[in-house]
Amino acid sequence: MKIEKPKGTRDFYPQDMAWQNYITDAWRRVSIRHGFEEVDGPIFEKLDLYKVKSGDGIVSELFSFRRENGTTDFALRPEFTPTLARMVADKANSLPKPVKWFTIPNLCRAERPQRGRLREFLQWNVDLLGLEGELADAETILVAVDFLRELGVTPEHVRVKISHRDVVRNILIKLGVAEENILDAFNLLDRRDKMEVEDFEKAAMKLGLDEHRVQRFQEACRSRYRTGSLGSLCKAIGMPEEDVKELQELDDKLHALGIAEWCEYDLGIVRGLAYYTGVVYEIHESSGAERALAGGGRYDNLINLFGGPKMPAVGFGMGDVVLSNLLRDKGLIPENVAPRPDVYVIAVSDAGSEKVLPLIADLRAKGLHARFSYKTTKNMGRLLKEAVGSKAKFACILDDAEATAQVKNLDTQEQVEVGIDEIAKYLHENL
Amino acid sequence: MKIEKPKGTRDFYPQDMAWQNYITDAWRRVSIRHGFEEVDGPIFEKLDLYKVKSGDGIVSELFSFRRENGTTDFALRPEFTPTLARMVADKANSLPKPVKWFTIPNLCRAERPQRGRLREFLQWNVDLLGLEGELADAETILVAVDFLRELGVTPEHVRVKISHRDVVRNILIKLGVAEENILDAFNLLDRRDKMEVEDFEKAAMKLGLDEHRVQRFQEACRSRYRTGSLGSLCKAIGMPEEDVKELQELDDKLHALGIAEWCEYDLGIVRGLAYYTGVVYEIHESSGAERALAGGGRYDNLINLFGGPKMPAVGFGMGDVVLSNLLRDKGLIPENVAPRPDVYVIAVSDAGSEKVLPLIADLRAKGLHARFSYKTTKNMGRLLKEAVGSKAKFACILDDAEATAQVKNLDTQEQVEVGIDEIAKYLHENL
Repeated sequence: MKIEKPKGTRDFYPQDMAWQNYITDAWRRVSIRHGFEEVDGPIFEKLDLYKVKSGDGIVSELFSFRRENGTTDFALRPEFTPTLARMVADKANSLPKPVKWFTIPNLCRAERPQRGRLREFLQWNVDLLGLEGELADAETILVAVDFLRELGVTPEHVRVKISHRDVVRNILIKLGVAEENILDAFNLLDRRDKMEVEDFEKAAMKLGLDEHRVQRFQEACRSRYRTGSLGSLCKAIGMPEEDVKELQELDDKLHALGIAEWCEYDLGIVRGLAYYTGVVYEIHESSGAERALAGGGRYDNLINLFGGPKMPAVGFGMGDVVLSNLLRDKGLIPENVAPRPDVYVIAVSDAGSEKVLPLIADLRAKGLHARFSYKTTKNMGRLLKEAVGSKAKFACILDDAEATAQVKNLDTQEQVEVGIDEIAKYLHENL
Repeated sequence: MKIEKPKGTRDFYPQDMAWQNYITDAWRRVSIRHGFEEVDGPIFEKLDLYKVKSGDGIVSELFSFRRENGTTDFALRPEFTPTLARMVADKANSLPKPVKWFTIPNLCRAERPQRGRLREFLQWNVDLLGLEGELADAETILVAVDFLRELGVTPEHVRVKISHRDVVRNILIKLGVAEENILDAFNLLDRRDKMEVEDFEKAAMKLGLDEHRVQRFQEACRSRYRTGSLGSLCKAIGMPEEDVKELQELDDKLHALGIAEWCEYDLGIVRGLAYYTGVVYEIHESSGAERALAGGGRYDNLINLFGGPKMPAVGFGMGDVVLSNLLRDKGLIPENVAPRPDVYVIAVSDAGSEKVLPLIADLRAKGLHARFSYKTTKNMGRLLKEAVGSKAKFACILDDAEATAQVKNLDTQEQVEVGIDEIAKYLHENL
């Protein structure tokens, strides 16, 4: 009886998992060195939790189910932010500030699977809450950039595109979009690359943006400005520098942190979600061909919305699927990401065989990654080939010698005789 | 608006998560050094996958949902074994043998939450497939024991209780249980500690075990036998030693691996699940007061049942909840399991403040866990207190000196002057 896995989900065989661990280990390692602490929550939440932030519209994108005798709806988590907001709101008074959290949840969305988008995927979330000022935004961007750099990505491969909701709002209002239509306009602009031109123009018209004005918006917003050139940006969009002072403060911090060259301003970035309140940013592959690698921004009202106090907040999410595509496309996949055995124990005589299991148990108990052959052959050539195939760093050869073994470095071919009781010590010193 | 988390699930705040990571890191580290490779699968599967192994009875224990326009039922995974069997069956011919896999999935069961049992929990799974003989069973037991030893557990704290389905079956048949009732009898015996005596006796009677025979079963099976004493066991249950030869082979391997003192024979262990075929075992806290810490055994027919070839298989599962209870009860929880910062950067002058962000970015890019104060104070006493509170190993004090900083070891109080550009190097050498 064969039953397939659900479409849009993945099986992780050892090689796939080693790659997954390569990414999640780096996410975790970089987050921790930037002073973020790991958190997690349930894989499913009450459905209402997702409606608070996103309204009823989100329900069709969720895997939901009814339980508790039909009284309560639950849903697999499509994102972590509502769980984070619930957790912060719950303990807002007792948590040390700023709250610097990261998490690596698996998320589930009932979407049509396509390139860069699966029904279950991993997403790295980095959030900084309870700190006023643009250092918070800059520090989250620093974490993302430091992670990408760690994996070999350069500023030539990707751009961090930065925008600000209020600046874009001002432009839209000057162009005649009514205040009550601003969120719809953000949402429309966020989706324009995925829409047919005609559909986009029709929808824009409804929001008060005729062809001419969309044209003017494109001119104003589709230009990119390097960090350090906010003056030119203000001139181009006819806005006093006073109106971009948060971006200016962010610009200063990006320079102080040495990551200005990774970043640029692109007012075409607006982010679709209703809850963003200030700086927003996305990381894109330089050609812009793929989906955003990461996206985030400020959400200063969200903790309040979930029953907590008003609290400044900024953060981003980065999914594993688009990231893996980028690393593959740029040739940044290391040859071997699986753990290498420290030693492969082989027996070339009956007397040697007797010593395998006690030695294996001893080496492993002492922290060494030790493997052995399950075959009954005593053929040294075949066994050494097996050891090399496992990518072990050392082979340990047991023969008739009662108290010693041959320990061979499989990288250098150097071989020495070591007392059986001294093998763990020898390996620890020579690994 | 306050929305509670679903009952029986957990929020992992930083301290909870650090503890969770302490356990999962150890599971992963020990699995790897025993030569097991990590795998994973989807968080939900087609509902039918769970029925293959466990029948329709399992459906009420699952969180299930209908999708794809009502044509397909899915369920959150309540265990990993069906996914593993599906994955092995799918690639049975191309996978190198033996298959040695481990996984640390979160599992969901729609049960009433109680001590040691939640609706979402983590379970460590260790499986060895494609290898004939009792070395496979012994090696999985070795992994479990080595893990427990790593966390400070001793043979005085826990017992690995080993049994064999065929031996128990023989006893039951001699007592008059019909072959077709054997699985029901296993199931009943597995649940007897959770049942009222009367209910148990009533159910036993139905299977052909009257009061007198239940009594004889208890006498035969509730005695425990140390490893190395299978002869006494055979005598007590009136069985020729030939009939326990697999247990004898296992016994030899447990001695060779040096873990015989952790193990004992307890024919009262039968495991409820239908798919076990040979050796079965559970790990219990010595007093027997808690739920089993881990349980597993041989399931030689399962890969075949999932559409693969016939393949020997053995494995166990260990949940995080009962394990945490054990470690807490035995006082085996380390004081601090959260990552300690390597260095805490503080500025005690305006000129020093200017240097904080560039230094922080540099240290972190060089792999150091570096934190700094978000406060504006320049008070050295207060800032050093903050550094100590963070459990950082070093403090780095920036003052008016242009090219140097004071680096203070917060464990030893030793303080030295280091060039700004040399701080990362100094810390790497002295950590």
